[in-house]
Amino acid sequence: MKLATLADGSRDGRLVVVNRAGDRQLPAHEIAPTLQRALDDWGRCAPRLHSLAASLQAEASGQALDSERLLAPLPRAYEWVDGSAYLNHIRLVRRARGAEPPATLETEPLVYQGGSGALLGPTAPFPLPDPEWGLDFEAEVCVVLGDVRRGTSARSADSAIRLVMLANDWSYRNLIPAEVSKGFGFFNSKPATAFSPFAVTPDELGASWRDGRLHRPLQCQLNGQRIGEPDAGAGMHFSFYDLLAHIARTRDFCAGTILGGGTVSNADERVGVACLAELRSLETLARGAPETRFLRAGDRVKIDMLGDDGRSIFGAIEQEVTTP
Amino acid sequence: MKLATLADGSRDGRLVVVNRAGDRQLPAHEIAPTLQRALDDWGRCAPRLHSLAASLQAEASGQALDSERLLAPLPRAYEWVDGSAYLNHIRLVRRARGAEPPATLETEPLVYQGGSGALLGPTAPFPLPDPEWGLDFEAEVCVVLGDVRRGTSARSADSAIRLVMLANDWSYRNLIPAEVSKGFGFFNSKPATAFSPFAVTPDELGASWRDGRLHRPLQCQLNGQRIGEPDAGAGMHFSFYDLLAHIARTRDFCAGTILGGGTVSNADERVGVACLAELRSLETLARGAPETRFLRAGDRVKIDMLGDDGRSIFGAIEQEVTTP
Repeated sequence: MKLATLADGSRDGRLVVVNRAGDRQLPAHEIAPTLQRALDDWGRCAPRLHSLAASLQAEASGQALDSERLLAPLPRAYEWVDGSAYLNHIRLVRRARGAEPPATLETEPLVYQGGSGALLGPTAPFPLPDPEWGLDFEAEVCVVLGDVRRGTSARSADSAIRLVMLANDWSYRNLIPAEVSKGFGFFNSKPATAFSPFAVTPDELGASWRDGRLHRPLQCQLNGQRIGEPDAGAGMHFSFYDLLAHIARTRDFCAGTILGGGTVSNADERVGVACLAELRSLETLARGAPETRFLRAGDRVKIDMLGDDGRSIFGAIEQEVTTP
Repeated sequence: MKLATLADGSRDGRLVVVNRAGDRQLPAHEIAPTLQRALDDWGRCAPRLHSLAASLQAEASGQALDSERLLAPLPRAYEWVDGSAYLNHIRLVRRARGAEPPATLETEPLVYQGGSGALLGPTAPFPLPDPEWGLDFEAEVCVVLGDVRRGTSARSADSAIRLVMLANDWSYRNLIPAEVSKGFGFFNSKPATAFSPFAVTPDELGASWRDGRLHRPLQCQLNGQRIGEPDAGAGMHFSFYDLLAHIARTRDFCAGTILGGGTVSNADERVGVACLAELRSLETLARGAPETRFLRAGDRVKIDMLGDDGRSIFGAIEQEVTTP
C-alpha cells in the first residue's frame, strides 16, 4: 500500500491511503490520525490500512489527490539517520574535496545523524540564503523503521522495515570541509531533507525489493534535463539490513525512525549522477576543474522512480530553489 | 514551574506538574496529555500549567510523586542537539586522545546531532554490553526549545527557551577515535542519553539563569563519592543563545527540540570533573597515564543541582551501570 500525509494545518498532517496510480486517496484518520500514530501501533493499524487501500484500488473510490497539499509522509520524525552505502559516491566526493575515504570503507558503514524535527514536503520550495554555501541535492532511497532493539542483527532486520520512500538530502557542499574538520560531523552543512509524496510498504515493490536493497533506477533531473538514473540496488555495498544492524549496535530506535541509504551512485559513469558533487568530481578528474556550478535560485530538481508499469512508485520530489 | 512525565504504559507517558520540593504532583493531562503536546501549543498550555503548579504549591494538594515511575520529561524527542560550549572540556578530552582542538574553537560552537527517539529516564539502569567500549558519563545542562526559525539570532534566542533540564550524555570513549576519524561524527559512540526528572521553566531558576547560562554548581557523584561540582555558568564560552543561533544558521527546529550545553567543565581543577575523560586526561598530564578506569557494571552515577534552599532543582539523575 501507499501512504501519504495531507496538510491540514496541524504539525503532523493527516494520514491518507493512496491508490497505485497515485492520483486518488481515502482518509485513514479513523484508523490512525497521523503516520507516526500508525507506526506507533503498526500491528493493529497495518491490516486495517491495507484493507482500506485494497478497497480504494478495487472500487476506484476516494477523492482526487491534491498533490499540492502533500507534506512529507512524516513531517517531523523522531530520528533521521542517513547512511552512505554507495562506495562510489564516497570515493568520488572525498576525492573532490581532497579527503581520503576511511580505512574501514568496505567493512563498516558510514552513517550520520540528521535533523528530523522539520522535514520538507515533496514540492516544498527550497530557500537558499547564500549561493556561496554550494547547494547540492542528493537523491536517495530510505526506509521507515518499526521499533528496533539494540543488538538487532542484519539477519533479523527485515521485519523492522515498515515503509520505503525517496529523499532529497540537501547539502551545502562548501560548508562541509570546515565543519567536518571540527570532528563532530555535519550540522549546518545539512539543511532540512525533503521526502517523496508516498511511503510504500515493501510488498508494493515486488521483486525489486530484495536483499535489503531496492533494485530500480532512481531518475534525477535538473531543470528538466536528465542528469542521472543510477540503479539504487547496484553499488549499494551495505544493504539496509547492514545499515540497521550498524546503527543498532549501541542503542534502541523507536518506530518512525527514518534510515537512508545515502546518495545513490553507480560505478558506471554512463548512468549519470544523483548529486552534483559527483559530476564536479568527475569533471575535475577528467579536465582538472569542476564545470557544473552548484544550485541557484530558479533551479529545479526532480527525483522519481518508476515501476514496471511506467508509473511513479513514490510520486516525484520536485523542488525549486528560491530566494528567501 | 516544574514539569515531569509519569510512566503509564504509553510511548510518551503522562504530563504532571510537580511542586517546588519535588515530592508532590498533579496530573496535567486535561491541559495536555504529554509534554510534547504542551510544547506544541505552549501559548495556550503554559499559562494553564502555571496556574495548576501555583495551586499545587499553595494548597499542598496533589498526590505523592512516585519517583520510580518517572520517565525522561520527553521520553522521545524530535531532536537532541548537543553542543560543547565548555572549552576546558574540549581541550582536555582532545588532549587525552591525542587530537587537536579545532582552529575555530573560540569563534564557532561545536555541536553534534544526537539520537532522540529513545531517551532514558532519570533512574533507568544502563546496561553495558562491553566494558572495553570505555563507558563514561557526561553531566550537562540542557534546554528545551519552542519553534525556532532559521536565521534566529542569539539576541532573540531567549524567547525560544521553554524549559531547562539536566542530562547524562553517556559516551563510549573507546569507540570515539575510530568513529570520528571516519568524518561523520559520533554515532555508535553515543548511546541513549538520560535526563533529569524535572524540566523547569527558566523563572524557577531566579538570578542563576542569566545571559543564556545557568550559574550554579552541577554536582556529580560516582559510587556515592563526590567527583566534581563545576559551575555550569563559569567556563561556558558559548551561551545557549549562541548555540541556538549557531544551529539555526541553516534550518528550522520544531518545538520540543532539546539543546545541550555539553559537559560542564571549569578550568579550576579543584572543583573536580563532570566526566571521567577529563579526570583521566588530568592524570595523564600529571603522571603520564590515566589511573581512573571507565565504568563497569555496578557503578552508580548521580548528577544533581541544588537551589539556594538546598533542595534539588531538577531532581537527581541516578543511574546504575548493569550487565545486559
